[in-house]
Amino acid sequence: MREVWVLGAASNRFGKMAETAREAATRVSWEAIHQAGIDPKAIGHTFVANCFGVADHQAHLGPLINQGLGIPEVPSVTLESACSSSSAALHEAFVHVAGGFADAALVVGVERLSTIDTLQATSYFAIAADYPFETKNGATFPGLYATLASAYRAAFRTTPEMFGAIAVKNHANAARNPHAHFQKEITMETYLASPVIASPLRLYDCCPFSDGAAAVVVAAKESVRSPVTEPLVVRASARAGAVTDMHDRTDLLGLPSTRRAAELAFRQAHLTPREIDFAEVHDCFTIAEALALEDLGFYPKGTAAQASLDGATARDGTLPVNPSGGLKAKGHPIGATGAAQVVEIFEQVNGLARGREVPRTGTALAHNVGATGGSCSVHIFGRR
Amino acid sequence: MREVWVLGAASNRFGKMAETAREAATRVSWEAIHQAGIDPKAIGHTFVANCFGVADHQAHLGPLINQGLGIPEVPSVTLESACSSSSAALHEAFVHVAGGFADAALVVGVERLSTIDTLQATSYFAIAADYPFETKNGATFPGLYATLASAYRAAFRTTPEMFGAIAVKNHANAARNPHAHFQKEITMETYLASPVIASPLRLYDCCPFSDGAAAVVVAAKESVRSPVTEPLVVRASARAGAVTDMHDRTDLLGLPSTRRAAELAFRQAHLTPREIDFAEVHDCFTIAEALALEDLGFYPKGTAAQASLDGATARDGTLPVNPSGGLKAKGHPIGATGAAQVVEIFEQVNGLARGREVPRTGTALAHNVGATGGSCSVHIFGRR
Repeated sequence: MREVWVLGAASNRFGKMAETAREAATRVSWEAIHQAGIDPKAIGHTFVANCFGVADHQAHLGPLINQGLGIPEVPSVTLESACSSSSAALHEAFVHVAGGFADAALVVGVERLSTIDTLQATSYFAIAADYPFETKNGATFPGLYATLASAYRAAFRTTPEMFGAIAVKNHANAARNPHAHFQKEITMETYLASPVIASPLRLYDCCPFSDGAAAVVVAAKESVRSPVTEPLVVRASARAGAVTDMHDRTDLLGLPSTRRAAELAFRQAHLTPREIDFAEVHDCFTIAEALALEDLGFYPKGTAAQASLDGATARDGTLPVNPSGGLKAKGHPIGATGAAQVVEIFEQVNGLARGREVPRTGTALAHNVGATGGSCSVHIFGRR
Repeated sequence: MREVWVLGAASNRFGKMAETAREAATRVSWEAIHQAGIDPKAIGHTFVANCFGVADHQAHLGPLINQGLGIPEVPSVTLESACSSSSAALHEAFVHVAGGFADAALVVGVERLSTIDTLQATSYFAIAADYPFETKNGATFPGLYATLASAYRAAFRTTPEMFGAIAVKNHANAARNPHAHFQKEITMETYLASPVIASPLRLYDCCPFSDGAAAVVVAAKESVRSPVTEPLVVRASARAGAVTDMHDRTDLLGLPSTRRAAELAFRQAHLTPREIDFAEVHDCFTIAEALALEDLGFYPKGTAAQASLDGATARDGTLPVNPSGGLKAKGHPIGATGAAQVVEIFEQVNGLARGREVPRTGTALAHNVGATGGSCSVHIFGRR
């Protein structure tokens, strides 16, 4: 297996895009390729991540993006794994490059749903859950994650402030991230006063609907002469699945797909959770960040929410988590989310995360979940 | 690179499915795995091909299919490359297995659009073309392929009967295929009397909207002890892209993505077009079959339509083409089409194509196009 490097990673500002998905995806791809310092013709395969092309009237995005990059002959495919689509795309790019099927590959995630109404967008998102058993009966994602939050609150001694601390911390980070949807801090009082969306989840427990695009360029170490950026070495690229339906699970205190993907990733990287310097984790709801930190092995079960309140996950804490602001505040453009996590890690490593730097950037982890855990990807990145 | 084998391949009857996409995909997956004689737990990755999950209210199909197969922990992803989605999925499966990332992989393509109205389905299909430049201005696929047909008719001396011969032949084959949507023969008179859809294309030049599901199981040769079927050896798995917009092309007498994918595939397989015994090619419209046969190198430019009229592509011809009935008459459930081509090749090789056998089954080619050629996949299969 060849060593795979991330040479470039770029994102637009999440929020509401005036550009179409195709335009935004092409532009961030250009930026990532330019940053990587490679010729677009070096790209052997383009992996697009996009879930709801129907909302933007455009499927089959790869050839259009490649055409915009001047490489129409390059093969491409669009990948969907719900909210973990672009980490799934990154995994395919990793496999192609590590396996010697391409020397370099482009991963670009994009979503634009702001052109349709919120109810329609909610109904689109909802098809990533189990339609006949969950969505059709009214269980949309806030309800499903509220079920996980209720189980957690029932099992452990938690206070609303513990989850509020996750929201406050992620907003504080996003306020320093020019790519973020919400570039504003919130206070605990704001959090506690926000309306209940699906009990116990309040408005500020939930990530927003965002448009956005993010691109990542990977290449085989052996194909790179002298990198113009500080590359991320892909030490692990692991994915796992799990039972989608909540009612068929034996345990609601974590996501089995995260546990399995993490186990595979740490084994692949020959690392332990203690050796990770910072992490971008999937915080579509604040409960998801707490569960992730436990399932990934950073905290014993039932303790991550308290650790957040203690400040351990802040940028100056023992393990900075979501210095980008996370899905919660940076935003969650479904198909772009996994790639955007890599953008944050790349910017931290390359000194581009001004104002939100984490102290140590030797080894970082990205964790991206599809729906309520039907899929999960864990990537671990190191330095040369 | 490890040698990759197709051990099983199964399809339902194309047409109108009472089952949901998820149910049909799970069932054909079971059938393909059972046929392959392997334990579902041997599957290392599931690649789903599906374009319009929104029509069936279900995205993120992989975890649901895997759950039905008793392997919820296995990673999965859904791939979209317009009408070439499941050949793109097969390519990813090939890369994973050939590269040593999985010993076996499942490819399952599925589409169900019969639950929505035809106009809505047309508008969904149309997003696989270039929306702002083509679809938005009224150019749906019959119109786009009619443009290709017009260019062909203007450049070469063709008669309507040459294209009619393709439709008559494919219907004759589909009449002998229990998986086919249209299990009925048509006459040249019926073809010539059918209404014009987009001049010069008549009704019987066009493939139907079909529901359907097809699954393929691949495994590394070295992981198979004693195959219970006659495996297809994957001699080549190649993909290419090309400019999507028709107005940006310099040549309308063929598809550049087919030419490039074919060149790569024949090089990979160390074979020439003369060594192919039969082929499944992408005949979404009759003109597409003629162009494919020329772009793939089977016929000089401008001669394939005449060859069809001469009977050269019939089951007893020099090169049998689309013994399954093709997209034209077997049907075209977008996400399932590429996998269904492999089902036909597998059934021919394993003596399961009763009543529609081709004389020689040593080497076969499958050709699958996305939209009007923005993407193309070519696979070549041999025998042990």
